[in-house]
Amino acid sequence: MCGSFNRPGFPAVLRSEDGELSVKPVKVGICGLGTVGGGTFNVLKRNAEEIARRAGRGIEVAQIAARDANPQCDTTGTPITGDVFELVANPEIDIVIELIGGYTVARELVLKAIDNGKHVVTANKALIAVHGNEIFAKAREKGVIVAFEAAVAGGIPVIKAIREGLSANRINWLAGIINGTGNFILTEMREKGRAFDDVLKEAQALGYAEADPTFDVEGIDAAHKLTILASIAFGIPLQFDKAYTEGITKLTTADVNYAEALGYRIKHLGVARRTEAGIELRVHPTLIPADRLIANVNGVMNAVMVNGDAVGSTLYYGAGAGMEPTASAVVADVVDVVRALTTDPENRVPHLAFQPDALSDHPILPIEACESAYYLRIQAKDHPGVLAQVASILSARGINIESIMQKEAEEHDGLVPMILVTHRVCEAQINDAIAALEALEGVAGQVVRIRVEQLN
Amino acid sequence: MCGSFNRPGFPAVLRSEDGELSVKPVKVGICGLGTVGGGTFNVLKRNAEEIARRAGRGIEVAQIAARDANPQCDTTGTPITGDVFELVANPEIDIVIELIGGYTVARELVLKAIDNGKHVVTANKALIAVHGNEIFAKAREKGVIVAFEAAVAGGIPVIKAIREGLSANRINWLAGIINGTGNFILTEMREKGRAFDDVLKEAQALGYAEADPTFDVEGIDAAHKLTILASIAFGIPLQFDKAYTEGITKLTTADVNYAEALGYRIKHLGVARRTEAGIELRVHPTLIPADRLIANVNGVMNAVMVNGDAVGSTLYYGAGAGMEPTASAVVADVVDVVRALTTDPENRVPHLAFQPDALSDHPILPIEACESAYYLRIQAKDHPGVLAQVASILSARGINIESIMQKEAEEHDGLVPMILVTHRVCEAQINDAIAALEALEGVAGQVVRIRVEQLN
Repeated sequence: MCGSFNRPGFPAVLRSEDGELSVKPVKVGICGLGTVGGGTFNVLKRNAEEIARRAGRGIEVAQIAARDANPQCDTTGTPITGDVFELVANPEIDIVIELIGGYTVARELVLKAIDNGKHVVTANKALIAVHGNEIFAKAREKGVIVAFEAAVAGGIPVIKAIREGLSANRINWLAGIINGTGNFILTEMREKGRAFDDVLKEAQALGYAEADPTFDVEGIDAAHKLTILASIAFGIPLQFDKAYTEGITKLTTADVNYAEALGYRIKHLGVARRTEAGIELRVHPTLIPADRLIANVNGVMNAVMVNGDAVGSTLYYGAGAGMEPTASAVVADVVDVVRALTTDPENRVPHLAFQPDALSDHPILPIEACESAYYLRIQAKDHPGVLAQVASILSARGINIESIMQKEAEEHDGLVPMILVTHRVCEAQINDAIAALEALEGVAGQVVRIRVEQLN
Repeated sequence: MCGSFNRPGFPAVLRSEDGELSVKPVKVGICGLGTVGGGTFNVLKRNAEEIARRAGRGIEVAQIAARDANPQCDTTGTPITGDVFELVANPEIDIVIELIGGYTVARELVLKAIDNGKHVVTANKALIAVHGNEIFAKAREKGVIVAFEAAVAGGIPVIKAIREGLSANRINWLAGIINGTGNFILTEMREKGRAFDDVLKEAQALGYAEADPTFDVEGIDAAHKLTILASIAFGIPLQFDKAYTEGITKLTTADVNYAEALGYRIKHLGVARRTEAGIELRVHPTLIPADRLIANVNGVMNAVMVNGDAVGSTLYYGAGAGMEPTASAVVADVVDVVRALTTDPENRVPHLAFQPDALSDHPILPIEACESAYYLRIQAKDHPGVLAQVASILSARGINIESIMQKEAEEHDGLVPMILVTHRVCEAQINDAIAALEALEGVAGQVVRIRVEQLN
């Protein structure tokens, strides 16, 4: 049902008689092979099969434009050029992935790619915040897609969440930790009482902060991202020049500690709020009550809260930067483009995320074959030797103990609760151990068993 | 560029000569006017203009099928029938919204709607988990969309996040608090030391739990949702019958407290994990380290963690149930359908979420017009009367004090830090107050000012 699409810059989908999609891959070109470019190349290569099952079509890197090789990428077999403009003119390429950063060449490159009928995926927040209005107008004129999920909060699909997931709402406000470098510095200042300058130096040594850290610590990077978020939340044009931006360079550990004493944490937030009079658009250090989820987002992690009139407050959390987290968003945009142009409009996004003919028969395991750590509570009759017997039953089955707690003070009818947390082990093994424990004369009644997951 | 669509059950988009979309609204029918149905009706009505600006077309409720009126909805002017099958046969209706719940009538109704060429939006997790494979096959056959974001975690767009936002990843595992009733009970047990039965009775009185709470407290509801999440994460067919399900009815406050003493929180989790041997699919009480973000998701709120090989761990948080949060997801699905079928495929989702001709000129406010609470640190020369002068400066400008802390012990060069947190006030007012404070003879140097946001 439904014919195939045929558009400028995008080859027709080839269908065999029985309606199968052809295996002809979509061809992408990657401009820039730095951290994000390298990650994008690696993710496309490593997850090629998984991605094709989701997208309905393979995705092939037809060309890379880069000045230098990236030692973290094995690009053997992929044509490389030093000239990005050669890549955007390459008639083989359907989608141009712009990962060179900056405003000037990137703008020219993206406009040229659109002119040539290419779809564009970019991670460039500065470009979108400053030149987005121009770029989007050109894209509409030429009938191509421009996607930019990776421009805000790295791997967290927050643009998609606001633009599509919360489309029923009148958005009231949003607030985000959208610069990982800044959050790393504030986390260290709070947890270890270190001074700003001291932590900044470490962040630079760790590669979290640039040699010139101005964009991160003065809030400019966060203001780029906030500008984009505010536009998609409130339906206003991009207006980076109107954002109020205040950095974290003047924060002292004294204020971090006083805030703590008052029940607050200090975070560098981007805040956008709709009021009768207009939109507040501001980046600055902010005290947040310590019990809020977002106040507990630490290190280089990012999180964005979005409050809508129907949904209330929601939060999206994850890695805001880095090689593969950012690549995750770039490649998701590529998949969106492929799905939008390749598959049937009615089933653009497959119901179960993967194409119906690409579901797997990987079995669901019975619970006995599942693996978990376990919390065990044993009611021990208070006589010597029970602990040794318990330990021996567990060790005979290769079950290691992570921690143990015996509450003598809570003795009750001559029974003392003994609490154990094990390492990860197969459920069948713990069942066997529990049966043996319950058979011990020194153990009363049933052993309480609750699973433990680290979730990190 | 690109013509209009014309499909069974969906009227052609009318375009005027200059390419403007017609104002002809898409017509939806709502089956069921209970909590979610009522919420959906109200959100569609209240946010009609905002939604049309996002979707590119108005959305009109053409008919409601309900046995009883909902006192929270003013349905004046909307045709109501008592027969859901009359609604799905209504030739006027483009999209059927199924909100009656249950497996039997809902299944028949949805299959009939698809047969009639209607697109379907449903919030029915049981229906999708148990009959999804059949429903999706029928939808593909008929070329209509079936959308079900509201079936998992209410207003949190987590299906979209996994299915589209994380499509670059090989998903390793996911874990979610996906039943608000259960989480409310566990939160009360931990925070107030209350027994399970006692809290369950309160939850029933508050309307969080049904008269028959089995689906919630025995984990069946969570297993429905987990089944759906696992399928879209791993690309496997829906297999609800293979999920391992364990409830929270046997949890004691003793174990909740011991877990706490060991540094853990107990949450009722749905866990799905990919292993070499197969997929783990299990719902059970789980100890989680207390410092994990998800361990701090309390009350009726939901959260889902998803770990992918490229992105690492991400988390999605929000209201998992309730009238308008669930409606938020239902209506977002409706907007997805309208966008997919109405607008140009290349610009299906507008760059800035709202249609380019529907952006607003609501101004960005200068920082002086923004409102916030403020943390102020004043270095007071330690002589009597400074506090009175400070209080008088603030009160003269209508600035109320939320809390105050004076650290005599931290006297330094004869200066004592005085810390204030104000109520919300306009930035211009605080600037004026700070200037007056700095002019006081009893105040040394500059006043430190950091903004405070409650974010609740």
